[in-house]
Amino acid sequence: MHASTGGFVLDPAIERDSVPLMWLGLCELRLMDDSRWPWLLLIPHRPDAVEIHDLTPLDQAVLSFETTMVAQALKNVSGCSKINIASIGNVVPQLHVHVIARSEGDPFWPGPVWGNGPGKSYAEEELHKLVATIRTALSP
Amino acid sequence: MHASTGGFVLDPAIERDSVPLMWLGLCELRLMDDSRWPWLLLIPHRPDAVEIHDLTPLDQAVLSFETTMVAQALKNVSGCSKINIASIGNVVPQLHVHVIARSEGDPFWPGPVWGNGPGKSYAEEELHKLVATIRTALSP
Repeated sequence: MHASTGGFVLDPAIERDSVPLMWLGLCELRLMDDSRWPWLLLIPHRPDAVEIHDLTPLDQAVLSFETTMVAQALKNVSGCSKINIASIGNVVPQLHVHVIARSEGDPFWPGPVWGNGPGKSYAEEELHKLVATIRTALSP
Repeated sequence: MHASTGGFVLDPAIERDSVPLMWLGLCELRLMDDSRWPWLLLIPHRPDAVEIHDLTPLDQAVLSFETTMVAQALKNVSGCSKINIASIGNVVPQLHVHVIARSEGDPFWPGPVWGNGPGKSYAEEELHKLVATIRTALSP
């Protein structure tokens, strides 16, 4: 799951705030431990990548494919109103893509999720259930 | 510039808040009339597309390519600290991708730009200069 790829080391803040879900090929997929919204992160295992255009064209295409696959699966399992996808990185520079299930009436809807204070951790059972659901949705 | 593609009609809020820059192939490229940040929008001319995964796989690949091309050009001309890329659409459902040049110390840095009140329009001369700079950066 956490195989280090050619010197890649996961950012400590990402590691602290999220739990591992699965390995996609280019990206590690993680779930943010914030029960306010189903919130996934894709982290390409490429050392020193900060901007998407730092990746090779092939990696960019794979990142796009993996992001869309995850977005569709998350929409299916969550039944959300809207998927939010973003690569921001103003605070944590290591390249990572957010895929978030937003629903009308959720906290801060329709505003963005970022910058809204500390996350609200999942109860352990709830976390295990969501992890299993997403893994199943993404399994071949 | 505004050729309608198979029934595509630009969302009125996007039309009101931004100015046309150029046609990319799949997407119309526009500049948000908000001088707080250099802020571009890519709008795929595909009627009824709301999520990126609503697009065909080919259109998804082209959108990824056009987004990255625009992001790299915007980083080059702006000299910004970080490019922010996002597809949100909680308010305006028509599929559109934000590409924003963020710099340390800009308004609301390092928070996101969305939901921070009405834009601050460009002075006319400043707008024309930025439009010309971005068009040149994206011309073959």
